[in-house]
Formats: sequence, structure tokens, C-alpha cells
Amino acid sequence: MKTLLIYSGGMDSTTLLYKLLADGDEVRCISFDYGQRHKKELEYARRICEELGVEHSIIDVRSLNELMQGSALTSDIPVPEGHYEDENMKQTVVPNRNMIFISLAMAQAISLGFERVALAVHAGDHAIYPDCRPIFIQKMQAVAAIANYEKLDVFAPFLTMSKGEIAEVGRELGVPFEKTWTCYKGLAEPCGKCGSCVERGEALG
Amino acid sequence: MKTLLIYSGGMDSTTLLYKLLADGDEVRCISFDYGQRHKKELEYARRICEELGVEHSIIDVRSLNELMQGSALTSDIPVPEGHYEDENMKQTVVPNRNMIFISLAMAQAISLGFERVALAVHAGDHAIYPDCRPIFIQKMQAVAAIANYEKLDVFAPFLTMSKGEIAEVGRELGVPFEKTWTCYKGLAEPCGKCGSCVERGEALG
Repeated sequence: MKTLLIYSGGMDSTTLLYKLLADGDEVRCISFDYGQRHKKELEYARRICEELGVEHSIIDVRSLNELMQGSALTSDIPVPEGHYEDENMKQTVVPNRNMIFISLAMAQAISLGFERVALAVHAGDHAIYPDCRPIFIQKMQAVAAIANYEKLDVFAPFLTMSKGEIAEVGRELGVPFEKTWTCYKGLAEPCGKCGSCVERGEALG
Repeated sequence: MKTLLIYSGGMDSTTLLYKLLADGDEVRCISFDYGQRHKKELEYARRICEELGVEHSIIDVRSLNELMQGSALTSDIPVPEGHYEDENMKQTVVPNRNMIFISLAMAQAISLGFERVALAVHAGDHAIYPDCRPIFIQKMQAVAAIANYEKLDVFAPFLTMSKGEIAEVGRELGVPFEKTWTCYKGLAEPCGKCGSCVERGEALG
């Protein structure tokens, strides 16, 4: 199977990258520079792909930043601290982000003759991010199947797994978690306090 | 109703712009510079919006051009001549274009507090463009309703109309067709031979 992975450089999508390779897929990665505060995740993504010998495109979509306002990840609004599922984490929702990423990845998949687009959304995302929920993935699968002459699948194998379970899969696959980046703040060191750091800490225990 | 129109500057979306204004909608337009050969349509779009006093954003998505390869509209492949519904017009299909445009417009609609995204796909598009067909619009409506905290509609009122019927609506609304741009080639004058010109000529009779 030829799979194009939407790759952030974080622990979930890195684990999915390792899993796809272990499953024998022909894998290629696509990352997006959308003016995110934690842009350093892209450098982490680039390094992992380089080490694994996986082709990787970083697509500059900063011109879309003006469309995706209102989020702490794409503007001057401070990144909230606390638990990943807390109400204030809604400030990190980027308008329509996953639909945009999936639709762009689909265009590249078609151009390259790939059969599916993969992403590492998981159960921990469901509380806060509508575009990580099972119903969203189902409906994207429905439209991806008919939107072009090429029938594409949207593959989200971690959809109902917790981040702890993903960590378990990653350990079995030998994922180098220390080479992945999660923190939303994107400073020199992970802050340890944003929702993303807190959730990662719980998962990696 | 606050409606964000995906606006190309051609006769169909210009007619839809006039219709939305006549219906009393609060309208704003969004156009995309995706490296299309007929980029001059953007200048036509800008002028019409200016004359009507409608807010208009032209979003530079040329960095996405590398994702949307394989089409005569985004590469060096010659634009085919003939009838709009001919088999060779498939060379003008841009991978996943309408899903990308709708998902980007949705992000802006959410950022601005708008309630729906409109586009002027019509029955003449169905033969060649999968992402203009009723099933595509239905499935995009299904996902647009649940992908974000804000429930959005995808409004395509010309979906089952012929281009001739759109021309009729446009005439009644006083659309200045001479100020719209249709030709795929984007030269100084319309070529009169590409599918888009042929279809326009038939519709305007």
C-alpha cells in the first residue's frame, strides 16, 4: 500500500510512521508550515524522515495563516496550561485544520499515485478537537472516496486508542520518543505545562 | 445569512454573487491564486468586487501548486480544445481542487463568524469534474456540519442548473457578463476554442 502520512514530528505521528513502515507500506510524509507557534516540530519531523530514509515534503502554507485565526497556535493568544481535555484547551483549536491538511495531502497523494492518506488522530483528541473525532474521519472517508477519479482512503488506525496505548505501540516498534517534539509553545525546551506536554508526560509515564 | 463565496471571476460565480446580494445576504468573496494558467480571472474578480463594494480576499496558495500537478491548468500541459464535456477535458482536472477550496473557505468563514460557504458548480461540470457533482457537494455538506464547533453549510444553488439557465438568471439580475473571465488559456483575448470558452459561448448564445 502506498501511504502518504500527515506528519507533525510528534510522538503520535512518529509512532504511526514506524508502524506503517513495519507493516510494509511504501511511505512518504507531508508536513505543513502554517505559521504554528511550535514550528520547531517541523525540524524534528525532517530529522526523523532523514534518518529513516523516508521522502518528506514540508509545504509552506503560511499564506493560509490569515484564514486560520482565533487559535493560540496561530496567533498571539497565549497557549493555555493545564490538562489536554480541559475546556480552556479549546483556545488551541485551529479552524478547520484537519480538513485542510487532509484535502492538501489528498492532492499530493493523487499527483503521486498514492492510495491513502494517514493521520495519527487518537481518542485523547476527541474531547477538544471536533476534527479528530470518529464521525469526522468517517465523513472524510466518505468524501475522499468520490471526490476525484482516484478513490482514496483516509487511514486513522489510532482513532480509538489512548495516547498511553500509542506509547505502548511505539515502545514495541522502537520509536525514539526523545527525538519527537510535542510542546505547543515551541521554546528551547518543552514547557511541561501546556496541554500537549501534560498529555505526553502522562502517556510516556 | 452571512455567506462567503468562492469566487473565480467567471460568469457562474459572478451570477451567484449577484444572486446572493439580491437575496439580501451579507456577502464576502474569496479567490485563490493557485498558479492557474488563467490567473487573469483574479483581476476580473477583484474589479467586480470593487465595483459592487464587496469585501474580497485573494489568497496566495501558489505554494500548493506542487501538490496539484498533472493538470493543464497548473502545469505546462497544453489546454485541450473542444467541447466542455469531451473526454480530453479531463486534462483540466486539478487534483482535489474543490475540496481544498471549500476547506480553506470554511476556515475563513469560521474565523469571520460566517454561516456558509457558497460555490457556483453546475450541471455542465458533472461530466468531467468529480468534485462538482451532487454527491460530492452532499458529502462535503455532511462533513462541514460536524468538522468544527461552528456548523457550516456548503451552498451550491446552481448544482443542477445548466450554464444556459445560469446565463438566464444572470441576465435577469443584470450581471455584466462582458466583465467576467472564463477562458482557461488566460491570454490577452479569450481563445474561443477551449472547453470553457465553448461552453460559455453556448450559454450566452
